[in-house]
Amino acid sequence: MTWATIATWRMAYEGMQKASEILAADGSAGDAVEKLINEVEAYPYYKSVGYGGLPNEEGVVEMDAAFMDGDTLAQGSVAGIQNVMHAVSVARSLSSEHYNSFRVGAGATKYASLHGFEMTNMLTDRAKARWQKRLRETQENNLNPYNGHDTVGAITLSNKGSMAAATSTSGLFMKKSGRVGDSPLSGSGFYVDSEIGGAAATGLGEDIMKGCMSYEIVRRMADGQSPQAACDEAVYPFIEKLKKRYGKAGEFSLVALNNQGEWGIATNVEFTFCVATDQQAPKIMIAYPDANQTTRIEPITKEWLDAYEKRIKEPI
Amino acid sequence: MTWATIATWRMAYEGMQKASEILAADGSAGDAVEKLINEVEAYPYYKSVGYGGLPNEEGVVEMDAAFMDGDTLAQGSVAGIQNVMHAVSVARSLSSEHYNSFRVGAGATKYASLHGFEMTNMLTDRAKARWQKRLRETQENNLNPYNGHDTVGAITLSNKGSMAAATSTSGLFMKKSGRVGDSPLSGSGFYVDSEIGGAAATGLGEDIMKGCMSYEIVRRMADGQSPQAACDEAVYPFIEKLKKRYGKAGEFSLVALNNQGEWGIATNVEFTFCVATDQQAPKIMIAYPDANQTTRIEPITKEWLDAYEKRIKEPI
Repeated sequence: MTWATIATWRMAYEGMQKASEILAADGSAGDAVEKLINEVEAYPYYKSVGYGGLPNEEGVVEMDAAFMDGDTLAQGSVAGIQNVMHAVSVARSLSSEHYNSFRVGAGATKYASLHGFEMTNMLTDRAKARWQKRLRETQENNLNPYNGHDTVGAITLSNKGSMAAATSTSGLFMKKSGRVGDSPLSGSGFYVDSEIGGAAATGLGEDIMKGCMSYEIVRRMADGQSPQAACDEAVYPFIEKLKKRYGKAGEFSLVALNNQGEWGIATNVEFTFCVATDQQAPKIMIAYPDANQTTRIEPITKEWLDAYEKRIKEPI
Repeated sequence: MTWATIATWRMAYEGMQKASEILAADGSAGDAVEKLINEVEAYPYYKSVGYGGLPNEEGVVEMDAAFMDGDTLAQGSVAGIQNVMHAVSVARSLSSEHYNSFRVGAGATKYASLHGFEMTNMLTDRAKARWQKRLRETQENNLNPYNGHDTVGAITLSNKGSMAAATSTSGLFMKKSGRVGDSPLSGSGFYVDSEIGGAAATGLGEDIMKGCMSYEIVRRMADGQSPQAACDEAVYPFIEKLKKRYGKAGEFSLVALNNQGEWGIATNVEFTFCVATDQQAPKIMIAYPDANQTTRIEPITKEWLDAYEKRIKEPI
């Protein structure tokens, strides 16, 4: 067997290095995907996930996360959880419960507290400064307050053929309290079946859930499509359908991995992602929507990476 | 065109009468499905939905609901909302928002309050007595506290060919605070597309969401299957898959309606439901799982209805 992993955005890179070590050492798909996401959650300069994540309109960091075991189909999810360093680890713990495996709001936070998860104030000074600035901008210029909704979502395949999926996000910047996106929702933000493959999403959750995009990609792989064909044929026609029926479509991007280690991407915006396999060290790539409902994928450039590094650390 | 509606459980009957009047008078699919659910929410003797719904383990009535417009694919959902008489109406209101259309916990309750929805203490004396009794029983006899998780879910088709879907539930009796089932989750508890059809679920949400059952049924109807074939072929193999992979499968039941007014059912337990069309006055029927992954459907008997009426009103 081969191991493999794919994840959304440049921010997954450092976590993917750790996940790859676990997978290369015959570790479990679940341990690898949790470790990958934990690294993103803990890094304060990634402003859409975990510590340093941007708050809701009231200045409160509310997080959504999910974990799914592709062998058993067990799932755990949290939404609107507060003060928890590793929301994905809470979700993974919940996935061992047959009842009450999806908890929201104060009930989710209570579960984390009762079960000894690390709790802290998740609003960094930097995130608070961004929130204060955005509040001023939206008041002064009557701007749409919403932007930034980058979820880290990842799929892993172990040497033993087991798969797992997980997501974590602080959600839409300036969201209303208790707003939930696709990330904790089965079939929308994530789905994985070790006998087929998995998919995960990032983007405007309100639109992703209108099409159950992750489930649709997995069921296309079940019908024999390659991950890339499944992504292209699920995502691009759905974007057209949304424009026609709903009048508009938000930004969204999907990653998929099958149980042979093959992967695919679809996106309607510039979108970075990370991939690693037993044949390929962790690598950052960039994808764009291309002509005829296909996806163009290119290596990342040093210029892009340097500009990114500068951007995430620039003064607020 | 023909109008039609299908809904889960005997409890939908009175609401379906009102919904049928709306549909017969060329009313909208959305108005009809909301009215159907509202009637169930307001009736105190239905103990799993709205007013009179059973509380969580702390004695708090927390409700989940969703609304979907099959023309535009717009969705609104609430989970863990409190003190709201008509959770489905809050969900429908949220479906007109492009951002923040799914709200949970205190944020969901705040939205309802801000938007002038009727708010009241949803814990009836009768529901409180049941909760107190169950608390004693589980403490004294070390019983599994969970039972009763009957969602009202409904699909409507209007004379103009528009469809809508909605769900409402107080969730699993004795659930942990903030527990969310499938009812507010797109593709799991509900899904509808006016160009195809819709489906809705009731049962153990934790297991229904492992298979995105409502979406799976709709996509099978999109491939040309009848609603009954789509229900049978989506639900029964998935129950077998869950038993094999997860080790067990909770109770669940699905209803489906296509845009021609044809309907279907699948269930792994005795399951009542209601149907009405322009050719058929509202009617209660009963379904059972049958041999070879099929569903047996029978007219309801007077004995069953009398026993039900007695049961829902018997002293606690």
